[in-house]
Amino acid sequence: MNEDRLNRQIAFLVELDKLKTVFRNAFLVADPDRRENSAKHSWHTAMMAAILEEYSEHAVDSLRVIKMMLLHDVIELDAGDTDIYDGRAAVDKASREERGAERVFSLLPSDQHQEMQSLWAEFEGARTPEARFAQALDRIMPLIHNYYTHGKRWKEDGITYEMALPVYQVIQEYCPALWGFAGQLLDESVTRGYLPEHL
Amino acid sequence: MNEDRLNRQIAFLVELDKLKTVFRNAFLVADPDRRENSAKHSWHTAMMAAILEEYSEHAVDSLRVIKMMLLHDVIELDAGDTDIYDGRAAVDKASREERGAERVFSLLPSDQHQEMQSLWAEFEGARTPEARFAQALDRIMPLIHNYYTHGKRWKEDGITYEMALPVYQVIQEYCPALWGFAGQLLDESVTRGYLPEHL
Repeated sequence: MNEDRLNRQIAFLVELDKLKTVFRNAFLVADPDRRENSAKHSWHTAMMAAILEEYSEHAVDSLRVIKMMLLHDVIELDAGDTDIYDGRAAVDKASREERGAERVFSLLPSDQHQEMQSLWAEFEGARTPEARFAQALDRIMPLIHNYYTHGKRWKEDGITYEMALPVYQVIQEYCPALWGFAGQLLDESVTRGYLPEHL
Repeated sequence: MNEDRLNRQIAFLVELDKLKTVFRNAFLVADPDRRENSAKHSWHTAMMAAILEEYSEHAVDSLRVIKMMLLHDVIELDAGDTDIYDGRAAVDKASREERGAERVFSLLPSDQHQEMQSLWAEFEGARTPEARFAQALDRIMPLIHNYYTHGKRWKEDGITYEMALPVYQVIQEYCPALWGFAGQLLDESVTRGYLPEHL
C-alpha cells in the first residue's frame, strides 16, 4: 500500500465535496424554489448517459461518457458556474476553467491526474463521439429543467426563444436522434408561454 | 425512433430529480451547516469508485460499479433515507426499498427496468466483487464526512465508537485494502474527541 498515493486520492475526493455548494441557474423540477447544484447535476447527467446511450450518433464507450459526466463540472470548484447567456463571463471562461482543472486534478497521483484532465479536455473539445454525446446531454438536461419548471429560470433572467435556440441547437449537431424530442420541448415551451419568442 | 420508449426514459429521468430533495444524516464537509443529500452522495460515491478501484479485493467491471453507485439510493425516492442506527426503521427497510425499486425502475422500458433492478438487487445482495466493493465505498464516504466535520453527526445523534464499529467493520470484510485507512480514521476520531467511546 502506497500511503502517499491513497492520501492524494482521498484529498481529491474531500476537495470534491465543495462542488455540493456550487449552485446553478436552473431550478429543481422536484422543488422549483430551490436552485440546482453542480454535484446533483453531475449525478443526473451521468444517469442520463446510462439511460440514453442508444441515441448517440456513433457507438460510444459507456464508461468514458459516464466518467465525463461525473467530472465535467469539477472545474467549477474554482471557476464557479458560468451562465451560458453571460457574454462577459464567457470572455475568460476557458482560461478560468483551464486553471481550475489544473489545480483540482493535480491533487491526484500523476497517472489519474493525467487521465481525468485529458477526459475533461476531451469533453471540452467536443470532437470525439463520447464528448459530442456528453455535450448534447449537458444541454438537454437544463432544457428539461426549464420545461418542467414552466420556464422559471428563463422568465427570471429574461431569456427568449431567439437567445435560447442557438444554445440548444448544439443538440441537433451532437445528437441528431434526440433533437426531435428537444426541439419539440422548446417549441412547446413557446406555445405554453414558458419562453417568450422575443423581448 | 420509438416515441413511447423515449417518453418512458425521460419520465424516469424526470422522476429521479426528486432524489435531490432526499436528505441524509451526514453533513457537508464543505459546509457543515447543511445536510448531505442522496443525489450528491450518489455522485460523490460514483467518483470515489472511479478513483479508488485499484483497492478492490477482486478485479471489477468499473462500469458496473459506477452504475451501482449512481443508482444505489434511487429507491429512497419512495422509501426515504433509513438511518443505519435506527433499529425500528430497519425492521421494514428491505420491504420498503423493494417496493421503491419496483415502482421507480418500472418507469423504464422493460429491458432497462430489468437491468437497473437487477444491478440494485446485486448491490443489496453484496455477494459479487462489484457489489462488495460498492458496499465498502458506501460506508467509507460517511466515515469521511463524519471525520472531516469533526463528528458533528455522531455528536448530535449520540453515536458512540461501540455503535459505529460494527457499521464500519463491513469495510474490512468487503475491501480489506481500505480498512487500514478507514480504521485509522475511526481511531483518530476517538482520539480527537469526535466520537465518544461509550455513552
